[in-house]
Amino acid sequence: MHFTKMQGLGNDYIYLNGLDGLPADLPALARRMSDRHFGVGADGLICICASSRGDFRMVMYNADGSRGEMCGNGIRCLGKYVFDHGLTRRRALTIETDGGLRTLELLGNGGTVSAVRVHMGAPILEEPLPLESGGALWQVTPVSMGNPHGVVFVEDPDALDLARLGPPLERHPVFPRGINVEFVTCPDRNTLRLRVWERGSGETLACGTGACAALAAAVRQGRAERQVVAGLPGGKLELFWPDDGQEMVMTGPAETVFEGEYPV
Amino acid sequence: MHFTKMQGLGNDYIYLNGLDGLPADLPALARRMSDRHFGVGADGLICICASSRGDFRMVMYNADGSRGEMCGNGIRCLGKYVFDHGLTRRRALTIETDGGLRTLELLGNGGTVSAVRVHMGAPILEEPLPLESGGALWQVTPVSMGNPHGVVFVEDPDALDLARLGPPLERHPVFPRGINVEFVTCPDRNTLRLRVWERGSGETLACGTGACAALAAAVRQGRAERQVVAGLPGGKLELFWPDDGQEMVMTGPAETVFEGEYPV
Repeated sequence: MHFTKMQGLGNDYIYLNGLDGLPADLPALARRMSDRHFGVGADGLICICASSRGDFRMVMYNADGSRGEMCGNGIRCLGKYVFDHGLTRRRALTIETDGGLRTLELLGNGGTVSAVRVHMGAPILEEPLPLESGGALWQVTPVSMGNPHGVVFVEDPDALDLARLGPPLERHPVFPRGINVEFVTCPDRNTLRLRVWERGSGETLACGTGACAALAAAVRQGRAERQVVAGLPGGKLELFWPDDGQEMVMTGPAETVFEGEYPV
Repeated sequence: MHFTKMQGLGNDYIYLNGLDGLPADLPALARRMSDRHFGVGADGLICICASSRGDFRMVMYNADGSRGEMCGNGIRCLGKYVFDHGLTRRRALTIETDGGLRTLELLGNGGTVSAVRVHMGAPILEEPLPLESGGALWQVTPVSMGNPHGVVFVEDPDALDLARLGPPLERHPVFPRGINVEFVTCPDRNTLRLRVWERGSGETLACGTGACAALAAAVRQGRAERQVVAGLPGGKLELFWPDDGQEMVMTGPAETVFEGEYPV
């Protein structure tokens, strides 16, 4: 079975062309292939399928075999995949995800795609909450980007012990579904720097929805302009929030790591 | 560039056929390809080269780009590679490594190899030393298998916090080059169960030389017979030490995970 390994900001997925059918038991396949020592190694498996509502449908499995709704880094690579593999010739696409429809703009010269702009949906913000956790008081701004986030502004995200601070905030009783936690600083009004503690995964190299949530909270609190570069451990994203109530626009790289043949 | 990803007991390497030449700057390639998020992901890179002293030469790079001398799991997969890829039709091979010559027997039915027996060289044992480390007293048996080991017999390896106990023993002043540390139990006289703290790498899924060192120490101290099954977190190895001064014989699985094309 042919597969393509791709990554965006170090968030890496195995891509399968599902337009002509897929193997049975995709959750088991996702677990087996995602294993980093006994398998291909990835954060999960993304299948490109036909859609009645958009140009393609993104069917995503996490490394543990559970279904993922939507991933900003993963959908950028999906955009590169369908163009580079000749599944479309258009550079503006609508993708059906379990988190709703997303529109993509495929950027790059000539026959390939090097970066993708994603319309990530509109953030839903709540007022900051003072929460006690791990012996300290945190001002947490709840933001929904389809998935739940809690944004915390700090002096220096690099100085924090996320393995200690992340879990109690992720599972704070105020958030019964759990949250992804963003630890954010704004070194200037057009720059964010953040580390993300992802619900169920721990610290990750990058989280597109987390970066969008951080911008939404930063704009609402007057800390940043609506157009910023967000630096994450895995790389940089350009973010633009045209206005309250509008969609977040995220632009970032998408890269093919290698092509492979996996025995099934 | 074509590559093959293989694993033995979860110890995984990228294999390149170097008989017709190799890319330049292999240390940089090993670092780039071994990265588990931005690259292929592996414990390192192994090139199969021509040898004037054996049938093939194993040229091994660790994930950090440094040269590796020899790896028991890696050399088993090399044996499967050269047979399955038609580079030899013989099932008894001599392989030149930076740790010396090693002889392999390739096991399996029909046209492929499923397991490999490796003659691992003779262990060199020293008397057990009582060492204080991390607030406890440990009886450490130094064993050289070409690389330096310290074997510690414990009641239950699974109950130990290796991240805490490993580093101070690895770098104990008695061992200026550092050691790999094996935490071993013998549930019966034909079984070893162990976890290995590898010098420079931390805990690993499996370590072939570490399992051989554990058997040498267990036999010398009358804890086990000369033929055992050694259980490691990544799987099982059969070990046989015919007599003092003779070579350790290790038999274990070798598996191809997938074939890939990497852009260089």
